[in-house]
Formats: sequence, structure tokens, C-alpha cells
Amino acid sequence: MSFCGETIDSIDQALDHLSSEARELYLDTTVPVLDEPPLPLSFYRDHVSPNKPVLIRNGLQHWSALTKWTPDYLREKIGECTVTVAVTPNGYADAITEGKFVMPEERQMMMSEFLNIMENPDQYKGIFYIQKQNSNFTDEFKEIIGDVEPDIPWGTEAFGSHPDAVNFWMGDMRAVTSMHKDHYENLYCVVRGWKKFILIPPTDAAFVPYETYQAAKFREKGENFIIEDDMETCKVPWIAVNPLNPDLEKYPEFEKALRLEVTVKEGEILFLPSLWYHHVQQSHGCIAVNYWYDMQYDIKYNYYNFLQSMSNINKRSLVNL
Amino acid sequence: MSFCGETIDSIDQALDHLSSEARELYLDTTVPVLDEPPLPLSFYRDHVSPNKPVLIRNGLQHWSALTKWTPDYLREKIGECTVTVAVTPNGYADAITEGKFVMPEERQMMMSEFLNIMENPDQYKGIFYIQKQNSNFTDEFKEIIGDVEPDIPWGTEAFGSHPDAVNFWMGDMRAVTSMHKDHYENLYCVVRGWKKFILIPPTDAAFVPYETYQAAKFREKGENFIIEDDMETCKVPWIAVNPLNPDLEKYPEFEKALRLEVTVKEGEILFLPSLWYHHVQQSHGCIAVNYWYDMQYDIKYNYYNFLQSMSNINKRSLVNL
Repeated sequence: MSFCGETIDSIDQALDHLSSEARELYLDTTVPVLDEPPLPLSFYRDHVSPNKPVLIRNGLQHWSALTKWTPDYLREKIGECTVTVAVTPNGYADAITEGKFVMPEERQMMMSEFLNIMENPDQYKGIFYIQKQNSNFTDEFKEIIGDVEPDIPWGTEAFGSHPDAVNFWMGDMRAVTSMHKDHYENLYCVVRGWKKFILIPPTDAAFVPYETYQAAKFREKGENFIIEDDMETCKVPWIAVNPLNPDLEKYPEFEKALRLEVTVKEGEILFLPSLWYHHVQQSHGCIAVNYWYDMQYDIKYNYYNFLQSMSNINKRSLVNL
Repeated sequence: MSFCGETIDSIDQALDHLSSEARELYLDTTVPVLDEPPLPLSFYRDHVSPNKPVLIRNGLQHWSALTKWTPDYLREKIGECTVTVAVTPNGYADAITEGKFVMPEERQMMMSEFLNIMENPDQYKGIFYIQKQNSNFTDEFKEIIGDVEPDIPWGTEAFGSHPDAVNFWMGDMRAVTSMHKDHYENLYCVVRGWKKFILIPPTDAAFVPYETYQAAKFREKGENFIIEDDMETCKVPWIAVNPLNPDLEKYPEFEKALRLEVTVKEGEILFLPSLWYHHVQQSHGCIAVNYWYDMQYDIKYNYYNFLQSMSNINKRSLVNL
């Protein structure tokens, strides 16, 4: 092999070794479970610092939301409130559809109407999901805010700061969150139903293919939804595989990525560390509240960016070889 | 430029960017100072997790060693005890001399004799340094162990484990510890005099040149010291530059490494994070005790090994270009 080929081969091997060594050194083969919330120091040392997910049971039993948040209660307390709902024909908001990055149609409606749709989804066109983020909980759900806590106290103590955003999620079982990553430490609490996460660690970033897509939006038009290009948004880099049905002929390296699956049930909290890729499914009418805490842009982030650079060099090289 | 040259150039640039981004993101331009010991959680979150050194004042005032450990007291309490002393002609133990990795002559002597040498160094041939490590403090200095603490309590709580080793250091101002790194989290406490550290962060690993050297040992022979090859030890990879006088013609990239200097005075503690390169000088008769805590072989270590692989590929490529 030429010297040049050897160099490129070595990069490829180093990326493979990073991934296999991660499994030997520190990653778990399943998401570990704690039977009660950790002490702040243990949480930071054992999970935040090493960037490892953990499922925490019995951490929300003092939330009145766990018993209160029935459709009747929500109708009574916030039925008249206006909420922002993402509507799509296929359940995929902010995901790749027909070769474009398609955002949902955003509709304002009364919460009572949303609850009607949840109860009789087949009578409505489209799939509905409250998933606005950016602290929609504190903005749009003020009347029921006292049913949960404003933060997760042991998380706030560990991170040394209050949450940057608190988000409310409720939606159809057909609504899926496509694979992506966030620049936040995430404490994800399920109040009703369940959420199923597929997780991929950041050290496997080289195996998660990105492409650049035209940004677009769903819009209801007559009997159907159409996809309209969004000319205001630049082209969007997004993950090119659906982990439920990956195109391994086109993206064979995706098979190398470690995929952890974890189902978060009523009353459980998932610590989803910053920069982990995640894909989310849910039970019908599932309700969740999540807390985003600022991540530290520290040595781990510095190394992560270096990994991304090397991964890009590797991809360019393999194309040119 | 050829495609091959471009690839190699990109690796070189990514290594440079890792280093410059580290300074923008999280590294300090000087070692920060705390006026009192941190709480365990803050220590872990602000220093251990992001792998950042910090100097801590007023953390040892309850150690009786700080007032007790005069030559007279040591002579009285442990004068008759046997201690292991490293002897070299030039002050460099475990360092590169005449193109070899030269270990010191190890001598067993009574502590009273060592103290005589410290008081009249010119009357003796060689430079003497108690620097054995591997918990020499608990092995060889039992009689004065009660003058310090068996651990640093806030460190033990933060790390969640007791120290793996406690080491005692005392020596000549001409004795230097050559640049190296340890796979430990280090709490370094100065009891008398001062130690001056030169520190280089692990994210600058690509700029710290290593070479492979024949292992050897100093041995006193007649009027001089000779260097004898140590055939039992394989060839040793060691850092090829002396940061006090680096050969920048041969190793120009060393100039890119961030060098932090910090002097640790009597009663002060340096937290020296795992994998940071360090070079140490000292005042005459300086006494120190350091605590080695196990490091976590976690995502940071995983990324660090990846950086080392890429750095090696880069070095090979630049030679072959």
C-alpha cells in the first residue's frame, strides 16, 4: 500500500479503536439503573463527568403531577390555554422526509382541543405532538407548574446552576423524535406512559453520517400535507440515517455505532448526557417534562470537536481514495 | 497540493486547532488560586472533571508537620531510620543524559546521614534526593506519619476513594524532576520551602516530542559517576526536550505547547490533574508530601488515547512527506 493509503488507513483504524476502547474502558452494555436519586457528588463523578447515561427510579413520587395529570384534570386546569402543537402527516417533525429536512406545521390551539385529538386521533388529519422546547413548560403551562418541581434539586446542586430550560412533551404514539444531539445535560422525567430512547455515545460520532438538506416545512393543503421549501433557513446538516431502519448499503459504518436502548416509564428519570445522539418513541398520550442544564464546554468538548475534525478528514479521504 | 498532502495538512491543522480551542474554551492562562480548600463537589466539578490544575492555600495549617519538620526534629525522630535516596552527578534522575534514559543510583542510608548531606552538600559527591515514590512515606517514614494526615479529606470525598499512594520528597536544590506525566490525580503538598512546576496540558500532547532511549543507571566509580546500560530494562520512551532549555531546532513544535508555571509554597497544595506533563524544581531542603488518587479511565482517557494515535500518525506522515 502507498504511504498515503497507509495514513488514511491509520486514521480509519484510530477511529475504530476509539470506539472499541470506549466499550472496554467506560461504557456500559445497557443503561444502568439506580433505585433512588444519587447524591449530587456521586451523580457528577459517576455520570456527568464520564458522560454516561443512567436511569433513576423513585425520584418523582413527591410530584403531584404523577397522580393529577389525567386528561380530565388537564382539561379543567388548562383546557382554555393556548398551546403550540407540531403537526405532521407522518409523525416526523424536524426529520428527513423525501430528501429534505422537514419541520412541522406549528399550530396554536386550545389545550382542550389537543386533548380531544389525543383521545380520538383517527378523527383528525395529521399527527400531533406538543414538543416545542425552549422552555415551553414555563411559558405555556403556568397553571400546572406547581404540580412538578421547578428543577431537580440534586441535579441543580450537582451542576451548580438552575435549569436553562424546562420543556413539556405530550403526543401521539406515532410521533417520533429523529436522531439528533443536544448541547445540554438533560434530566428527562416521564409523568405518564413511556418513552423509548435509542442512544449512541459521542465517541462513535465517526459512524453517524450527516448530510446537508434543503430546509422545508409541512403545510396542510386541502386533503393533504405538502412540503414547502423554507427559503429563510440555510441548508441544514442532519443525521442521514433512521436508526429504526438504517440504509446500511449507503451508510455501512453506521453498523459500528453502539446503540443502547432504554425505556423510561412513569415516575422514572433518564439522565441523557450532553452530545449523546438520541432517537425517541413514545406511548400514546405520553407526558414528560425535561430539564436542560448547561453543559460545560471543557476538555471533553474540546476533544469531541477534535474527533469531529478527524472524522471529517477521514470521510473526505475515503471519498478521494 | 496533492490530495495526500492535503490530508496530512488537515491532521496537522486539527491538532493545532485542538490546542488553540483548548485555550479559548477552558484553560486558564495562569494556575488559579483558591484561598481555602474547595468543597468536594466544587472541586470535582470545577477542577477534576475538566482536568484543570488549581493552587489551594490555607489547607494544611492543622498539620503539625508545618512547624515540627525541622532538621533537628527529623534527626531526633527518624535519624536512625533507613531511607532510600536517589543519587546523581547532575541532579537529573530518570532523565535523558548523554542520549540515554538514566536512572539514579539508589542508596540506603540513615536519615541522619541524609540530613548531614543536605546541610553541607558541597562536602559530598553527587546530588541527593529522597524521591522514591510508591508510597515511600508510609513505608519508610512511619515515625512521623502522624504529623500529617493519611489523606486529604475533601479530596478523598471528591474522588470517592482513599489515596493509592502517599510519597515523601526531600532534596537538594539542584535536583530536578524531568518532564513526564502520571496516570494519577495528584494532590501535592509542600511542607517546607517551595517547588516550582512547569505544566503542559494533555491536549497539547502532539507538541511534546518523545524518543526511545537505552535505559541506563548512574553508578559511582572512584572519583566519578559512570553511566552503565541497564540490560534488564527494555528501551524506554521518554520526553526528548528539557523545558528549561528546549532544542527548538530539532523539536520546533514544542514551542506551540502551552506552558503554565506555578510555584507551590510552604502550606500550599497543588492539584495536578492526571496526564498533565510536569517538570519540577525546588528550593534547597524542600520537603513535600503528595497524595496519588486513582484516575478514572473514562471518556477523557479514551479521547486522550485517540489524540495520541492521531499525533503519531501525523509525526509519521510528516517524516514521509
